[in-house]
Amino acid sequence: MNDTTVTLVGNVATAVEYRDTAAGGVARFRFAVTARRWDRERGLWSDGNTSFYTVSAWRSLGANLAASVSVGEPLVVHGRLKVREEERDGQRKTFVDVDATAVGHDLSRGTAAFRRAVRTEPAPQPEQDPWTVAAEEGTAVPPQLVTAS
Amino acid sequence: MNDTTVTLVGNVATAVEYRDTAAGGVARFRFAVTARRWDRERGLWSDGNTSFYTVSAWRSLGANLAASVSVGEPLVVHGRLKVREEERDGQRKTFVDVDATAVGHDLSRGTAAFRRAVRTEPAPQPEQDPWTVAAEEGTAVPPQLVTAS
Amino acid sequence: MNDTTVTLVGNVATAVEYRDTAAGGVARFRFAVTARRWDRERGLWSDGNTSFYTVSAWRSLGANLAASVSVGEPLVVHGRLKVREEERDGQRKTFVDVDATAVGHDLSRGTAAFRRAVRTEPAPQPEQDPWTVAAEEGTAVPPQLVTAS
Amino acid sequence: MNDTTVTLVGNVATAVEYRDTAAGGVARFRFAVTARRWDRERGLWSDGNTSFYTVSAWRSLGANLAASVSVGEPLVVHGRLKVREEERDGQRKTFVDVDATAVGHDLSRGTAAFRRAVRTEPAPQPEQDPWTVAAEEGTAVPPQLVTAS
Repeated sequence: MNDTTVTLVGNVATAVEYRDTAAGGVARFRFAVTARRWDRERGLWSDGNTSFYTVSAWRSLGANLAASVSVGEPLVVHGRLKVREEERDGQRKTFVDVDATAVGHDLSRGTAAFRRAVRTEPAPQPEQDPWTVAAEEGTAVPPQLVTAS
Repeated sequence: MNDTTVTLVGNVATAVEYRDTAAGGVARFRFAVTARRWDRERGLWSDGNTSFYTVSAWRSLGANLAASVSVGEPLVVHGRLKVREEERDGQRKTFVDVDATAVGHDLSRGTAAFRRAVRTEPAPQPEQDPWTVAAEEGTAVPPQLVTAS
Repeated sequence: MNDTTVTLVGNVATAVEYRDTAAGGVARFRFAVTARRWDRERGLWSDGNTSFYTVSAWRSLGANLAASVSVGEPLVVHGRLKVREEERDGQRKTFVDVDATAVGHDLSRGTAAFRRAVRTEPAPQPEQDPWTVAAEEGTAVPPQLVTAS
Repeated sequence: MNDTTVTLVGNVATAVEYRDTAAGGVARFRFAVTARRWDRERGLWSDGNTSFYTVSAWRSLGANLAASVSVGEPLVVHGRLKVREEERDGQRKTFVDVDATAVGHDLSRGTAAFRRAVRTEPAPQPEQDPWTVAAEEGTAVPPQLVTAS
């Protein structure tokens, strides 16, 4: 309830890092979304600000992502948005995370050959919250991921 | 302005139909989104209502879609939602269309190999409205597409 | 899961109809969203297609809506989108419904004085689906609502 | 193009600050979105993480917001999401901004009396970007706003 869902269209900014946890496997990477503005005077599109997000994908989505996605590739990322503030080394830091529920290569930028996976794990129950499990296990986002750009 | 953006997670319900128009090539297909509900008594997810949409994709997105997507494949579709009412054969019909801006195979359901395309056409200018161009040309959605399920 | 969330910015097209059901009170009305396009030649915005939706709001949201909203007022409507096809009088009809989770008067069009309600009913449990309850009770959307424009 | 639209449902965390700029008036405030999770063992909803955003609203939306909204009130905020990184005092800071396009009091939490405004200013042209104008004028978000919680 009160979840903020968001759809990001952009590019993978760091290598996908995959790890196993007690809550299931998770893939994480930094993702870049560059706004584009129509420049009336010059009659063309120009790049605006680039927003960076840390995307997490759990279980089968995470495993398939790790097997399919490389740095620089264009993706559509759909998921839940979360802004966290934490103390790190005596400073207050802001982290912008997306817990992905569906991800695909953006076909406006190229072609893709899809191969359906056989489902080998049960779907999660609604009250499971990977963030909470990860926090309890101490498998939070590693610093090198969240500060990379 | 006042555009309604939507992200659909579901499956391709009809073959992708591609055609050339003066506004550029366009790919169209029917898309099915099935809600899933947690059944507390039985302890499992069960299928709910299935919503059907007619998805249109223009220019390079349309061409890449036609080259990459088959019936039954799972997709993430991001675009502008539009509900139209028209008289057909003396009856009022309702059409639910999505003008896609980004589409990808849903990696929660399988893996994909992506191949970047070389861009060969300019990006559209903001005031171009493919719907209007299509309407003027008489290249509206063919009846067999909108009534298929 | 696989819910399609949508945010509509538009105007109330019919009077809000409120009724009590075993699943709680529900408010329903038709809602109009008019796309606007930038006309480069004339240097102004012009109206495009108008999309119509049937919005339902349950429990406290429904009661507050019925007490606050009049025909013609501008709203922001956030909720779950659902497209249904049904046989009516031997014809196949398409209905486009939004089950609202949050609704407010659009302050880009005017001012509003807000008054917080004392919460008198418990929040719903996650597995409750008002649509299902309504269907079982036969309290589906009345014909005059879905065909009004 | 590539804009990330988002709808936030939450509460106003700081007083609305309104100021005039050459790009028009702008209202700004911090906004808090608290996720809620279903606790299966205890059979109730419990609060999760709170995400904070800096919301900006320009022109008539900004003026009406400043005249209508107080700290603590529940809102629905629809707009464009932007994550910025800046050097401040030798440290890299992350800012999460929403440029609002429509905002309303959340009627799931109370009632509202709406009063339509007479439009006295022209709608913006599509290529205007308030962020850019603000940056050129040096009317960026004041530090006390972005660090407040």
